[in-house]
Amino acid sequence: MKKHNFNAGPSILPREVIEKTAQAVLDFNGSGLSIMEISHRAKDFQPVVDEAVALFKELLNIPEGYSVLFLGGGASLEFCMIPFNFLEKKAAYLNTGVWAKKAMKEAKAFGEVVEVASSAEATYTYIPKDYTVPADADYFHVTTNNTIYGTELHEDLDSPVPMIADMSSDIFSRPIDVSKYICIYGGAQKNLAPAGVTFVIVKNDAVGKVSRYIPTMLNYQTHIDGGSMFNTPPVLPIYAALQTLRWIKANGGVAEMQKRAKEKADMLYAEIDRNKMFRGTVTDKADRSYMNICFVMNDEYKELEADFMKFATERGMVGIKGHRSVGGFRASCYNAMPKESVQALIDCMQEFEKLH
Amino acid sequence: MKKHNFNAGPSILPREVIEKTAQAVLDFNGSGLSIMEISHRAKDFQPVVDEAVALFKELLNIPEGYSVLFLGGGASLEFCMIPFNFLEKKAAYLNTGVWAKKAMKEAKAFGEVVEVASSAEATYTYIPKDYTVPADADYFHVTTNNTIYGTELHEDLDSPVPMIADMSSDIFSRPIDVSKYICIYGGAQKNLAPAGVTFVIVKNDAVGKVSRYIPTMLNYQTHIDGGSMFNTPPVLPIYAALQTLRWIKANGGVAEMQKRAKEKADMLYAEIDRNKMFRGTVTDKADRSYMNICFVMNDEYKELEADFMKFATERGMVGIKGHRSVGGFRASCYNAMPKESVQALIDCMQEFEKLH
Repeated sequence: MKKHNFNAGPSILPREVIEKTAQAVLDFNGSGLSIMEISHRAKDFQPVVDEAVALFKELLNIPEGYSVLFLGGGASLEFCMIPFNFLEKKAAYLNTGVWAKKAMKEAKAFGEVVEVASSAEATYTYIPKDYTVPADADYFHVTTNNTIYGTELHEDLDSPVPMIADMSSDIFSRPIDVSKYICIYGGAQKNLAPAGVTFVIVKNDAVGKVSRYIPTMLNYQTHIDGGSMFNTPPVLPIYAALQTLRWIKANGGVAEMQKRAKEKADMLYAEIDRNKMFRGTVTDKADRSYMNICFVMNDEYKELEADFMKFATERGMVGIKGHRSVGGFRASCYNAMPKESVQALIDCMQEFEKLH
Repeated sequence: MKKHNFNAGPSILPREVIEKTAQAVLDFNGSGLSIMEISHRAKDFQPVVDEAVALFKELLNIPEGYSVLFLGGGASLEFCMIPFNFLEKKAAYLNTGVWAKKAMKEAKAFGEVVEVASSAEATYTYIPKDYTVPADADYFHVTTNNTIYGTELHEDLDSPVPMIADMSSDIFSRPIDVSKYICIYGGAQKNLAPAGVTFVIVKNDAVGKVSRYIPTMLNYQTHIDGGSMFNTPPVLPIYAALQTLRWIKANGGVAEMQKRAKEKADMLYAEIDRNKMFRGTVTDKADRSYMNICFVMNDEYKELEADFMKFATERGMVGIKGHRSVGGFRASCYNAMPKESVQALIDCMQEFEKLH
């Protein structure tokens, strides 16, 4: 039975990325060696990193003066690297969910942290809109897509101070005005690669301005200087990331990714809004994520939740259980998700409605 | 042509580890999904982590009260995590090479660091032996195998204070008395896995004793509590590590790995000592590494170095160039290296000798 992979992350990757990576595991570039057993200093691997960096810059239209890094540790490690590198006195954070809150928590050890707004009181079912970012903050941090709650900033915000964004779950799903940010980072295991590599886009001249000592591996300057090769990088995840970047380019780039994401999301949200058994959880429709589509059973069908889960699972749906803090269902529709899989889920919802 | 993979790291892995990983990239456990696109919270993946932890404990005979962690960031990140977590006032370090020195450098930001001994003056061609570890140090840090220079501690040292060891390049190559250590860590890309996962064996009750604030991701307690799942771990590298652990167990465990390592090293060192064209770089033969076998051309044949490199490369030898700080050649003979490959290198050396 065909599986439809709606996992929130690690999550679906293009089939050709999977096949090319499997091939490289058996034999990298016809070298007779596996991608798992080559030196990261091998002359065959440097072009992998170079091309991945170049495609990052090309696809996201990254201006001069920025570096692209591939690190380990996940976005969670970046939560402390951000204040280590950029927080001298005061930082502003927009609290849009658990991940934003975790990022904010790490910053509090380094200086004053201003929570400019929060939707915690409403279980983060919307993104706060009217707030003031202190003009004397070192940076303003946002989480552009909130995987758990299914909310997303579809456009870059305006800010009186440089922005920093966790784009773990929506990178490469829309064009970005990178010049508004001094740092964009994320775990790569959604739209880009398998788990194990973290991407960081960092403005070179924003680094090195804090007065504290920064441990070598936590200092962005180390990785800028080392071209992500200060120590052994996660070789295979970077190789897989390159295959995805090529796939994005071959499929029309981020503008096309955005168009497809909106089409898929519109299809599924339309069914959620039409189907009498379901409703979306995000209260402000403008905030609905294209990446993670969260919905629950309407109150009168609440007792059928487990039945629908079973019904959908029997039809090949994978990973549609909602996060425990929201409940219900979550269909993650990352770049690699084909429209056919979204349609398969819609078919499930319609068939289930007919049964009841 | 058959390739003989003498890379220093990332390095040779057992062929069946490579094949099983390639299969899991295409289809993990018959799930219809790639190991690259499953959730780390999936019920199929928890057994992978659980079995890897259990095999670590079994193969290394780890006593009760220790945790085994799989993290990101590499040993270089551990260099700062060690003092963050364990250095309250004073730490002792044995300086046996660049990696030991890097570990020591990070510690200096956290407290007093005593270099108990160093072989820097002799380009680290031996491991210092007569020194005193301060009895009031919080820990004594050693690098058990020095990849660049080809020196190795073949037995656990005695120390008046708890030990911490970087075992990046010799873990699973000999039995260890883990009870002597509060922490053993390493990048896994030599004897265990592809690059992208760091292993940490940590004594639970040694954690939490320093007075400083530790960022969440740098605190071992976070990962002990989270069972390496506080955030998304490097899923595929952990899967590959499990395959290697199974392979080690099926091949007789660490005692057998040690026996094989010694046999291979003895073969190659015997040829280095016999062959008039070559000599080993390690001055104290007792310190010769079983993992990384470093040798140079004797002075009268010095100008033939590039020729030998070409000669060996044409016969399938890969990764035998010595580190720039030592020069000459380095044959890394990790656990997965078959005796036949070592013999192939010896044959090269003998044929080359006959030619000149």
